This record gives sequence, C-alpha cells and structure tokens, in this order.
Amino acid sequence: MKANELFKQKLEVINVGLHSFKESLDKTGFEALDVDWKPSAGGDVEIVEMLDKFEEIKQKIDVDGANKEALNRLLSSKPKLIGMGKAIDVIPGMKKNMILHAGPPITWERMCGPMRGAVIGALIYEGLAKDEKQAEEIASSGEIEYSPCHHHQAVGPMAGIISPSMSVYIVENETYGNRSFSAMNDEGFVKSLRMGVFSPDVIDRLRWMEKVFYPALDRAIRFLSSVDLKIIIAQALQMGDEAHSRHKASTSLLFRIIAPAIVRTTHDPLEVEQVLKSIDGNDYTFLNLSMTAAKASLDAARNIDGSTMVVAMARNGTEFGIQVSGLGDEWFTVPAEIPPNALYFAGFTKEDANPDIGDSSITETSGLGGFALVASPTFIQFIGGTPQDAINKTLSMYEITLGENNVYQLPFLNFRGTPTGIDIKLVLEKGISPFIDTAIAYKKPGIGLIGAGFAIVPMEVFKKAMPAFIKKYS
Amino acid sequence: MKANELFKQKLEVINVGLHSFKESLDKTGFEALDVDWKPSAGGDVEIVEMLDKFEEIKQKIDVDGANKEALNRLLSSKPKLIGMGKAIDVIPGMKKNMILHAGPPITWERMCGPMRGAVIGALIYEGLAKDEKQAEEIASSGEIEYSPCHHHQAVGPMAGIISPSMSVYIVENETYGNRSFSAMNDEGFVKSLRMGVFSPDVIDRLRWMEKVFYPALDRAIRFLSSVDLKIIIAQALQMGDEAHSRHKASTSLLFRIIAPAIVRTTHDPLEVEQVLKSIDGNDYTFLNLSMTAAKASLDAARNIDGSTMVVAMARNGTEFGIQVSGLGDEWFTVPAEIPPNALYFAGFTKEDANPDIGDSSITETSGLGGFALVASPTFIQFIGGTPQDAINKTLSMYEITLGENNVYQLPFLNFRGTPTGIDIKLVLEKGISPFIDTAIAYKKPGIGLIGAGFAIVPMEVFKKAMPAFIKKYS
Repeated sequence: MKANELFKQKLEVINVGLHSFKESLDKTGFEALDVDWKPSAGGDVEIVEMLDKFEEIKQKIDVDGANKEALNRLLSSKPKLIGMGKAIDVIPGMKKNMILHAGPPITWERMCGPMRGAVIGALIYEGLAKDEKQAEEIASSGEIEYSPCHHHQAVGPMAGIISPSMSVYIVENETYGNRSFSAMNDEGFVKSLRMGVFSPDVIDRLRWMEKVFYPALDRAIRFLSSVDLKIIIAQALQMGDEAHSRHKASTSLLFRIIAPAIVRTTHDPLEVEQVLKSIDGNDYTFLNLSMTAAKASLDAARNIDGSTMVVAMARNGTEFGIQVSGLGDEWFTVPAEIPPNALYFAGFTKEDANPDIGDSSITETSGLGGFALVASPTFIQFIGGTPQDAINKTLSMYEITLGENNVYQLPFLNFRGTPTGIDIKLVLEKGISPFIDTAIAYKKPGIGLIGAGFAIVPMEVFKKAMPAFIKKYS
Repeated sequence: MKANELFKQKLEVINVGLHSFKESLDKTGFEALDVDWKPSAGGDVEIVEMLDKFEEIKQKIDVDGANKEALNRLLSSKPKLIGMGKAIDVIPGMKKNMILHAGPPITWERMCGPMRGAVIGALIYEGLAKDEKQAEEIASSGEIEYSPCHHHQAVGPMAGIISPSMSVYIVENETYGNRSFSAMNDEGFVKSLRMGVFSPDVIDRLRWMEKVFYPALDRAIRFLSSVDLKIIIAQALQMGDEAHSRHKASTSLLFRIIAPAIVRTTHDPLEVEQVLKSIDGNDYTFLNLSMTAAKASLDAARNIDGSTMVVAMARNGTEFGIQVSGLGDEWFTVPAEIPPNALYFAGFTKEDANPDIGDSSITETSGLGGFALVASPTFIQFIGGTPQDAINKTLSMYEITLGENNVYQLPFLNFRGTPTGIDIKLVLEKGISPFIDTAIAYKKPGIGLIGAGFAIVPMEVFKKAMPAFIKKYS
C-alpha cells in the first residue's frame, strides 16, 4: 500500500504509552484505542538490570513465600495499648545519656534545625541544661548518645525525640508478643517539641504530662487491661481518618473508651477534667498510637529470610531511610527532600520548609496514611486536592503492595482492604514510589509546624536496597 | 427503503426512555445511544393538570420568592442545645393527661402495635398503670389525650412517645428564637420504648434517666451555656454519619464536648462514670438531637405565604403525613407503607415489619439522612447497598430540592452542600419521591427493632398537598 492510499483509508490507531498522543488524535477526530503501557522500570536501564538479577535469585530462593509470610505477620498482628511508662524504665537499650530521634542514624553535626530544636528542648526538660546555649554545648559535647527510635522498638513523629524521663505509650502485639513505644503527643500542636520548639510553655506542658497526664492515662489503661488499637483504626477509616494526618475520629473513639476509666481511677475531679480537656483539645492525640500500632505490627514482619517487603520508612530531616524484611537492620538512605506538594500556613513558603522528617511514615509502611488517602476526603481537601485525587493516589499504591488489609477497609472503594506491604521489587518494576501524607516543620529550631502536604519516597532509596538484596541472596 | 433493505444497513439506534430496551439491543450486538428521558410528571395526567394550574398561580403570586425565603430561614437557622427539662414543665401545650406521639394525629383505636406498646410503657412509667392490661384500659378509656409531637414543637423517633414526666432536650434556634424538644434516646436500643417495648428493664432505665442522667446532662449543658448542634452535624457528615441512621461520629463529638463539663458539675464519680458509659454505650445518642436540630430549623421556615417547601414529613406507623410551609398546620396523609428495601435481623422478615413509623424523617426534610446518604458508605453497606448506590440516591435528591446547604457538605461529592428544601412541585414534576433512611419496628407491641432500610415517601401524599395549595392560592 502506498502512503497516499494509507491516508485515504479509515485509520485504526492503537496508541501505546503516552496518553497525550491520543489526545492529539482525538482533536483531529481520529478514533484511537489507548493502551495504558509504560516501559518496565520507567525505562531505567540500571533498574532493568537489577530486576533481571533479581529474577535469577527468585529461581533459587522462595521470595514469594517469604513475602507471603512477612505480609501475613503484618496483617495478623494485634497491637494493643497496655500501659504507660517512663522511657528509661521501659524502652529496651535506653540509657540516661541517650536521646532517641526519628529516622535513620544521625549525628548532632548533621541534624536538621527542627531536630536540634527538639534535642535542646529535651535537654532543658531533663534538667541537663538551663537554656538553649547550654543545651547546644551539651548536645555537641559527645556526652549525649543519639540513637534512632527504630533501634529501640520505638517511633516518634517529626523530630521524634524521646529522652529518658519522657512518658511513653507501651503497645504490645498480642499475636507475636513484641512491644513498641512512642512518646506522647500532647505538648502542643504548632508549637511543640516534635516540631523543634523548646519554649518554656512546651517544657511546662511536658512536666505536667509527666506529673498528671501520663499517670492518669496509665491507671485508666491498666484498669481497662488494654485498648485495642486495631479496632479503633479500622473504625476511624470509616469515619474520615486516613490514620496519619487526620486522627479526629480515632482520637474521639479513644476518648470515649478511656474517659469513664479515667473518672474511675483518678480521684481529683480537677485533674480528671484537665486530662479529658487535654485529649479533647488535640485531634492528633491518636497519631502516636497509630504509629506505635504500625511499628508493633511491622516489627513482627522483620527478618523474614528472602522477603523484599519494606518494614520501615523513616526520615530524620536530613536523610530518608528504609529497612527491608529480608535485609535485617540495614538502612538504605538518600538525602531527604522537601515535600513537593504542600499547603503552607500564611507567611510561609517552600523556602522555609525543612526536608521531610519523622517516623510517622511507619503508617504508610503498614498500609495507612497516603495508602488509605481515599478514606479522608477532608484531609485531601485541606491540602488542596479533590476526592478523585485521593482515589487515584490510593489505587496507585495497590500497584506496589503485596496484598490488601483484612481489617482496614476503604469505604469508598467498596470496602476494599488498604494496599499493604510495600515490595521493593514492585516499586522498581512499576516505577511508582510510595506516597506519604506529612506535616512540614520550619527549617530552623524554635518555629514549629508551617504546613502539610505529600511526600514521595525518593526512588533512589529502592535502587540502593535492591543491589543489597541481590548481593545477600546471590 | 424497503424493510428487508433496512435490516441490511448498519442500524443507528437512539433509545429514548426505558433503559431495558437498550439492554435488549446490547444483547443482540446493536449499538444504541441511550437517552435518559422520562415523561414530565411520570406521565400522570392528574399531575400534569395540577402542574398546569400551579403555573397559573405562579403568574399571580411569587412562589419562587416565598421558597427563597423559606429555604433561607431553614439554612440560616442555628440550633443549639441549651438544657434539659421535664416535658410537663417545658413543652408548650403539654398536659398531665397528654401523651405525644410521632407523625400526624391518630387515635388509640388506629394506632399501630409499636406505638401502642410505647403508650403502654409510658403509662406504666408515669405510675398511671401497673401492668399492660391496666395500661391498655386507661389508654383506650378516653382519659388520655393524644397529640402529635409536631403540634408541640417536638419530635420523637419511631413511636415518638413523650409523656409528662419524661426528660427532654431543649434546643433553641439562635437565629429565630424558636425552641424544639425531644425525649432522650437512651432507654435501650433493640428493646426500647420508642420501638414499642415496655419491659421492666426499659421502665427502670427511664427512671434512672429521670433521676441521674438528665440532671447530670442538664448541669453540664448549662455550664457550657450551649452546645452548637449545627457544627457537630457538619463535622459528623465528614466522618461517616448521614445524621439519621448513623450517629457514631456525632455521638463521639458530643461526648468529647460534654464529658469534661459533666466531670466538673456532677460530684459523685460513680454517677459521672455511669452517665459517660451511658452515652458511650449508645451510638444513637445523637439521633434525637439531630432530629431536634432539624425541627428547630424547619419550624423557622413555616407559614411562609406561597411557599411549596415541605416543613415536616412524619409517620405514626399507620399514616404518612407531610406539612407544607405555605399551607399552615394542615397535614396531608396517606397510609404508611412497609419500607420496600430493608435488612432484617435474623429471624425476621418483611411479614413482621410495621409500616414506616417515626418523626425521624424530619432529618430528610432538612436535607440530611437519605438526602446525605453519600456521606455514609458504612451505613449503606450495612443495609446491603454500595457507595455508588449512595451517590445515585443523593444525586437524585438534588432534583427535588430548592437549594444546597451552606454548612452541611458531602465530602465525596467534592464538598457539595446537601440537597435541601423539598419542593412539592419539583417532586410531582420530576416524579421523584424523597428517600428516607429508616429503622423498622416489629408490628406488635413488646418486640422492638427488627431491621433497617429505605423508605420512599408515597407520591400520593404530594398529590394531596398540591390541590390544597392550588385551592388556597387560586
């Protein structure tokens, strides 16, 4: 057929790949069938080679079986809040001169502003320093040992600082017996230690929490025996929470469970009223519990030989790191990025933002937060998106996960289980990186929360983990 | 063209009206374009004539202006819970020998089973009868005056019985100064007075409510000055409630607001604990407040000359009745129907169901419940539907309403306001009848709740209201 004949025929076009080509055809009136195809691994030759080697390993070891076991452990975990304690008394490996922080390991020298601010606050709160200047001296003196929360079965939002005297939640995974810990989240909201603020009101509030709040909660939780966090999270997903950046429903449900027990076990009515108002006054009360529940569940899925499932994603504000079930406690890290899409409070811009920070991405690692975004149209609207954006984001996370949650369901996807169990192989193969709901802190100490938005896990971190997997299992 | 030639051609079919015709074509492989067309007024000649006469009236009086005013009054209302009282002390026109009931007026002789059961329970609770037999004698003796809640600025779910000693919520419409009332909803769930159950535990519970629960709530509410019900409902719509058949979020939010105030104002810790557990134990606590808020708002929109907006839809279990703003206090009634689509608890079927009952359809009248169904995929799943069903139902209600709520928003319709202000003219013209979420009671006294589902308002009730409107305004 000659070219001039070809164009006399009715064209039957199949467009493969870029949708914009079809749009051009649509405008000319041609009918075209659109095939949603992307080159494997986003066309990245390096990734293609990795995936080839990975396929060879799969001939030798049962990666699918290992991932099935890892996912099963994550899904069958039953995290329950069983009490409160002081960090030094209950967190394994905690020391008097130790400060725990969010994300992968980091030194004082390389710490970002908000994390430094929170360390300063912790040293003042502990009575080790009387002011910022003295705290900075001690912080940089070498006397303080810094260690990631994740190395102590713990997690912390934003700066994630836990110092020895701080009150912490104790969560137990009923199925596997392991415990997890997190500091409380009630020292403030915009101006809070986790955001890098160390003003006197924050320190006073931490002291009140130590003296009044934490003992009252501890008595109430022990009176109740335990509080089932999984049931609260499951219900909250039906009530507009996505369990990372919105906790209004979960905080309300916790409040309903715990208030009568506080009344029963704390005898000073003024203290009861203060404690109830404190929980009611902070819709993020449940954040740390959502994180601790996720941590306890994911820790049970660690160290499954041959598994490519991610068991931690965490940021210290300088670096973004992940850990993989089949790769022990090794961190794979890359520089943390400033969240690309965010809403900033009046007076702040992207220029003011600290790079991505906090252990709270443990919720996404367990299939919540950005992975359950469709559960919370109210949160996505707050940061400038639409319910359809939320649907699209959540649907794309099914592409990179090993399964669907059997308890956490998404009402608007016909109660489909949340996408759960991030697979480093699927992430590389599909070229889709995990999506994280996140808060944003000011880049210097002392200012605090300045916005909220989305972070995308840097693809490079998976490009570091896969070669390590190939090396270990070759 | 001859017939046999016609069928050799490729047919281009446009199907107008019944979708099933297109389905038949689809099966044969023909392509057909479906046009979603319905004859005006559902092709009902009687309705077409009414609407013609209505158009003549519209030449003479400003119906659109009147409806704008009625809708504006509904939307600008600010219902607030300001305290508790005893029915005899606070409800206008309440008498010692009076029992208020749901729906349009009815006599003991014509009352359905569950309403009779609730009257029996009320007479025992009031100490006027010692048992069922004696209560029935008194109930039918002529000594008791029965009157609709709606005639006393009140509403009641299901049987809707309010007797003189019962504790009631007092709601004030801050914008217009009018008040509304409702009994409390904590005497039980499946086995409750409103469902027609009068067993000793229900009566005991009513007495505890009178002695302990209501005074504690009253002290707390007065301590808080008031509780803004509109804000709670607006938030609950973002949290999986549709504000008629699901109240988990609103009850939680109310609990958070009121618990610290109860602790402050009730001094016996055991009573505080009992009261908190009572609210926490009943996810329908907020139902009566949602209804009372709707009633206060709709009463402000009554008696707007020339308005075709519905200001009450209510069922006494025997008849379904509506009231229209421009038609004063006249009821238009037809026999109540058994809800066509429902989920029945194990052991019960449609045969056991009482026809549609209760004032709770005041929520739909104000643009909530079935009109906000898309807010609660969890409720629609419970009764066997899908989120898509919920979207479709809610969208269809925009067809028959005068406007959209400015405070109550539906997250999954991109935060569109709920369809609000039912117009009898639009209902008749579109042939779409209001959709009500509802509970279902057993048809005889003493059994209680047996299921939940959807009711459709009988179109006949609008066919009665429109001629009255035409007559009044001709």
